[in-house]
Amino acid sequence: MHYKLRLGMIGGGQGAFIGAVHRIAARMDDAYELVGGAFSGDPERSRASGVALGLDPARCYGSYRELFDKEMALPEDRRMQVISIVTPNHVHFEPARLALECGMHVVLDKPMTFSLAEALELQKTVVASGRRFCLTHTYTGYPMVKEARSLVASGVLGAVRKVYVEYPQGWLSKSEESGNNKQAAWRTDPHQSGIAGAMGDIGTHAFNLAEYVSGLTVSHMNADIQTVVPGRRLDDDGSILLRFKGGASGVLMATQIAAGEENNVRIRVYGEKGGLEWQQNDANTLQVKWLDRPTELYRTAQAYTSSFARHNTRTPGGHPEGYLEAFANLYRNVAECIVADLEGRTPSPESLDYPGIAEGVRGMAFIETAIASGRSDQKWIPLNIS
Amino acid sequence: MHYKLRLGMIGGGQGAFIGAVHRIAARMDDAYELVGGAFSGDPERSRASGVALGLDPARCYGSYRELFDKEMALPEDRRMQVISIVTPNHVHFEPARLALECGMHVVLDKPMTFSLAEALELQKTVVASGRRFCLTHTYTGYPMVKEARSLVASGVLGAVRKVYVEYPQGWLSKSEESGNNKQAAWRTDPHQSGIAGAMGDIGTHAFNLAEYVSGLTVSHMNADIQTVVPGRRLDDDGSILLRFKGGASGVLMATQIAAGEENNVRIRVYGEKGGLEWQQNDANTLQVKWLDRPTELYRTAQAYTSSFARHNTRTPGGHPEGYLEAFANLYRNVAECIVADLEGRTPSPESLDYPGIAEGVRGMAFIETAIASGRSDQKWIPLNIS
Amino acid sequence: MHYKLRLGMIGGGQGAFIGAVHRIAARMDDAYELVGGAFSGDPERSRASGVALGLDPARCYGSYRELFDKEMALPEDRRMQVISIVTPNHVHFEPARLALECGMHVVLDKPMTFSLAEALELQKTVVASGRRFCLTHTYTGYPMVKEARSLVASGVLGAVRKVYVEYPQGWLSKSEESGNNKQAAWRTDPHQSGIAGAMGDIGTHAFNLAEYVSGLTVSHMNADIQTVVPGRRLDDDGSILLRFKGGASGVLMATQIAAGEENNVRIRVYGEKGGLEWQQNDANTLQVKWLDRPTELYRTAQAYTSSFARHNTRTPGGHPEGYLEAFANLYRNVAECIVADLEGRTPSPESLDYPGIAEGVRGMAFIETAIASGRSDQKWIPLNIS
Amino acid sequence: MHYKLRLGMIGGGQGAFIGAVHRIAARMDDAYELVGGAFSGDPERSRASGVALGLDPARCYGSYRELFDKEMALPEDRRMQVISIVTPNHVHFEPARLALECGMHVVLDKPMTFSLAEALELQKTVVASGRRFCLTHTYTGYPMVKEARSLVASGVLGAVRKVYVEYPQGWLSKSEESGNNKQAAWRTDPHQSGIAGAMGDIGTHAFNLAEYVSGLTVSHMNADIQTVVPGRRLDDDGSILLRFKGGASGVLMATQIAAGEENNVRIRVYGEKGGLEWQQNDANTLQVKWLDRPTELYRTAQAYTSSFARHNTRTPGGHPEGYLEAFANLYRNVAECIVADLEGRTPSPESLDYPGIAEGVRGMAFIETAIASGRSDQKWIPLNIS
Repeated sequence: MHYKLRLGMIGGGQGAFIGAVHRIAARMDDAYELVGGAFSGDPERSRASGVALGLDPARCYGSYRELFDKEMALPEDRRMQVISIVTPNHVHFEPARLALECGMHVVLDKPMTFSLAEALELQKTVVASGRRFCLTHTYTGYPMVKEARSLVASGVLGAVRKVYVEYPQGWLSKSEESGNNKQAAWRTDPHQSGIAGAMGDIGTHAFNLAEYVSGLTVSHMNADIQTVVPGRRLDDDGSILLRFKGGASGVLMATQIAAGEENNVRIRVYGEKGGLEWQQNDANTLQVKWLDRPTELYRTAQAYTSSFARHNTRTPGGHPEGYLEAFANLYRNVAECIVADLEGRTPSPESLDYPGIAEGVRGMAFIETAIASGRSDQKWIPLNIS
Repeated sequence: MHYKLRLGMIGGGQGAFIGAVHRIAARMDDAYELVGGAFSGDPERSRASGVALGLDPARCYGSYRELFDKEMALPEDRRMQVISIVTPNHVHFEPARLALECGMHVVLDKPMTFSLAEALELQKTVVASGRRFCLTHTYTGYPMVKEARSLVASGVLGAVRKVYVEYPQGWLSKSEESGNNKQAAWRTDPHQSGIAGAMGDIGTHAFNLAEYVSGLTVSHMNADIQTVVPGRRLDDDGSILLRFKGGASGVLMATQIAAGEENNVRIRVYGEKGGLEWQQNDANTLQVKWLDRPTELYRTAQAYTSSFARHNTRTPGGHPEGYLEAFANLYRNVAECIVADLEGRTPSPESLDYPGIAEGVRGMAFIETAIASGRSDQKWIPLNIS
Repeated sequence: MHYKLRLGMIGGGQGAFIGAVHRIAARMDDAYELVGGAFSGDPERSRASGVALGLDPARCYGSYRELFDKEMALPEDRRMQVISIVTPNHVHFEPARLALECGMHVVLDKPMTFSLAEALELQKTVVASGRRFCLTHTYTGYPMVKEARSLVASGVLGAVRKVYVEYPQGWLSKSEESGNNKQAAWRTDPHQSGIAGAMGDIGTHAFNLAEYVSGLTVSHMNADIQTVVPGRRLDDDGSILLRFKGGASGVLMATQIAAGEENNVRIRVYGEKGGLEWQQNDANTLQVKWLDRPTELYRTAQAYTSSFARHNTRTPGGHPEGYLEAFANLYRNVAECIVADLEGRTPSPESLDYPGIAEGVRGMAFIETAIASGRSDQKWIPLNIS
Repeated sequence: MHYKLRLGMIGGGQGAFIGAVHRIAARMDDAYELVGGAFSGDPERSRASGVALGLDPARCYGSYRELFDKEMALPEDRRMQVISIVTPNHVHFEPARLALECGMHVVLDKPMTFSLAEALELQKTVVASGRRFCLTHTYTGYPMVKEARSLVASGVLGAVRKVYVEYPQGWLSKSEESGNNKQAAWRTDPHQSGIAGAMGDIGTHAFNLAEYVSGLTVSHMNADIQTVVPGRRLDDDGSILLRFKGGASGVLMATQIAAGEENNVRIRVYGEKGGLEWQQNDANTLQVKWLDRPTELYRTAQAYTSSFARHNTRTPGGHPEGYLEAFANLYRNVAECIVADLEGRTPSPESLDYPGIAEGVRGMAFIETAIASGRSDQKWIPLNIS
């Protein structure tokens, strides 16, 4: 049977960027139906946004509190089952907690919360709720990123020795926040973003990608965190030396002042016998390198790839899938798990492979450790979660 | 107001490839709601396919004739408004004609019909119907292909002199049709495909892309058409010298026996002052080359691109969009035109830029001329439509 | 023992391009010592050119006839042993014939002669002379081109089915010959170039590369030959459909009016089980493609490559070798053969692998067939050598 | 007049790698004649090596001391004018000092000396000698690296903010030094290499490239230096955070355990208005990126490039030049300066642009600071030269 989950959204009103991306991602595989939301803190704007999306005005709420109140008053078979939260960081924790406490599943944009303390609190709520929780670390949704993780896990490259991960952007090379760039404004505002700018916005993606592909856990960090553009209130650039448990080392580079760069996330992992390289600009290719034979180009949707890669593609080889498909993979995988839960089945390992609360907690610990290290004279700072 | 068009589908039942692609494309921008279809010639299979898609079984018809009969019996405000036809070529003309005669708009997979004669007949029907008709030449939906066309049209490259277009595939390097590969079976069957195999399946795409980007019209063709794999009943490879009206020349290469190639459609156009190159494997980049200054890399979603390119993208620069988004652009553009028609507005030039009946007629003329040229000792054969 | 061959040069005076390239190539591996030459038809200019190269003025001759006269008067152990001929095409045959008749070995720039008739005459002279003759089809000197040929010959790709070869340039997009561009002037002058412009200058390279890599022999051609730039006296663009003995087919594209292109020679060959692709802009990589496993990137100087590839490189993997090294490989290989001859040894297969008189004759037959086909209404013209 | 400098070589006997590279580089532009050398510490081997190169056995010396003694006994117009030193690091300082004291010019392989103390001592000798001194930091010899430096210096990118430089190799992923790999053996031996392995061998190249292209000076370093392969005696991997005078920051990555990597040196520099990227694997292209217009691909030998780039190329655009040509540019530039000195002319700025003693001193300071930082708990270590 075809199951379509009832989805509500918090944030993502007119003028927002990532809300529309979430909606396309949710729609891509027909696993959700958007039924309403609290699209803005301004009730008028929320309603107008919802109506423009073709929604019932009665379910376009003026605040997320109203959303939960009114939805809980609906019969269970009409009520929202999943809540997407696409607000700035300071409005992540509270709606996520409320949703879980209402028995709803949650898809939450990254970074997970405003602080590590909130993250740990949210983790308790998730565990207690028994509900599904997905954090949208998009890049782990790419089939060739999943292939990279599978190859490392299979051991064919030998033990991992070195990880280079980078996330170069240039769009904050000037003081965009001084003009009327809304995306720049909240991302550089400590009251909305938290203690970190670039490290929270894109550094967490790079960190998550490094741990996801390598299968390793960062133990220590040694960071050079910069605020390059004069007058900016948060970091816009950072380079971090990494130590992983088990002895591997690495480098994480995330910057928003690399003028002329768009968004070419890239990771390289080297083991004893070979290495691999993936970059978003050539997202359907995974370079697999060997000590003594030719580099191989693994490609999306080819029969020789792992079940994890194949599960996350929709078209035959040679039909490029991109960012929206990677994003949709997260939505679809968590939907498959929710439906399996509803039907009393165990989800497949491929469906279960989406970023969740544990990744969110580590991401917040990354942010706080990065900023602390940037401010510290101590060379190596442990990444501790306690 | 948000307008969601009621969509029906003919073909695309379980096991098909392109039907699912059409459905994702139609869904991507929330401009359509799939309400039913005739998904298979086998009524049982059609119903099962529709139910698996979550559709009302009452609108999952056993044949396209039943579909039109029953839908026309519904009140106009419930009836399907748009019909997607995703069947093999021999089942294109009749359902398209019926749909148009029922006052429905049509989205039709390529090549348009079984023969040029059918195409010309369908053209009359389209014109008479006043309905929108879209032929899914996907590659013209890519933003950087639209940018290429815009640049040529702007004249900055000077008059076009040379066009190279190629569509290399390798998946038919062996006799796949002898096994149980359904995609291979119908494409190599003259009763389902028509007189052409590769020339119809992918040659038409290459031909359409060449005329679309160059803005020129092919006048003569000189073709070497091959059936390389023993026992195959239709062509699987062709190389064609092209002459365009106005004096430009070109080469079209389309093959399904280039072992190891996936689907890397590629076009290069050279004018008096510069040239450009686009390939699907790097779909978000357009190389623009100049006689005396550095090659430039135009990129999807950048502010410096034309309104045609920007209209056909959903995310900021650096978030790769792919095949499904290109396909969705066709669906969205025709939807915008239909809604504009419904609301009595003139569609924007950007919305109107989708492949239609004229392109379909030229595609069928291309196929028949290619096959005729391949069989002829005459060097140059005119591409005539009469 | 170290053997350094005494080299003389005909052509290549001040202002020439290819003469300097030949000198670097000859010098690269210390196998030759340039001892003199007839660098120009103008005795003053010849002498000045030689002196600028640090040569003995007594051996800087005013004409190639003087060169042969005076050199033959020298004792054999001082006399030039090898003659490089780097003049325009109309001054190829006569000096080459004389050199061979003087018992000297010859390195000759392509295309080999002014006409096929001259080529066949020269072939007789070469055979009669027992001397080494090398035609500088540079691209076959690249290690990864040799690897491509080896892979095809090994049979791992199965029988060859399709060959695409292209040589796009843009430098003649305007009427350069109207200004004072010497390179353009002689190449577009039928009295110096012969019956062909682009087809002789670069088409022959593409043709040679196609036959060299595929191991096949072209049997028929179907050409569209153009003179695109108004007022030009010879062809500047051509596209040719190819048929090979044994049933393979192909396309050859050579143009000098592809505005914005430099010199990116490229070849693709497809067999039953896989294909390969090489292009000069990424000269140290050979893409090897497979029906059902990942594309492999073969790289210069890696241990897994053939003895033919390894013989033609000087540095470890990852140190890019380019055009001059490819050129030098021709010079070094023929030197190795000459020295082996002198020492009564049989040269190695790797040394013997340089383009010679047979390739030159085929190149001239290619030119005449291409031009004849371009002018003919007959679709397929046989490439005959008689 | 053509001036050919008399060259002697120390090191580079049979079995060595870099000696042959130096000889080709010196020969490429006909500016040197190799007249003898001390090719090995073993007199027999030295003589055999020289004879195999076709040299006069009388000038193939058994030691570098013998070389200087005997050469100084020759008349000045026969005596070696330039000495190339291509020995392991522990045999750099003494022969270089002696050569300078004999009035000879020196071309020395990197890293310059065994220690910073030696480097400072050598600097005094160079200054006192008035002779030319070139350190073979090959990568600065590439035309597109020179173009990068020119563009930064021109100010079009604005003030530099960020520098990423990397030098990934994989050839020491296993304990090659345990077998009979001579190249691995000396490079991992502290008695021959000095205190550093990878940091001296390739880290210095990366450091030099960063300072050369950015035009900036590193002030502080924060290094993670690793010995990854068990049993190895020196570092084989390092990642270093950089601070430049004036406020820019950067990252340097150099490793010899990135399994599957060859030698793809790569640098990226970002200023306020744009950035640039160069990598050796695509050596003839420089990517120039802009905040608000398309990325440009600057190419070797194009008329729009700077005089520094054009001075360092030999062929027209589209004929790839590689590692050997870059190396030859160093030799040719220093030769041009020596000849200008001999002729009482001022060398051109383009000729003067070769790495010298100052770069060598900074390289040794880099090595000592990197190793000190790797061992230190102090986060930032100043790069001081005193």
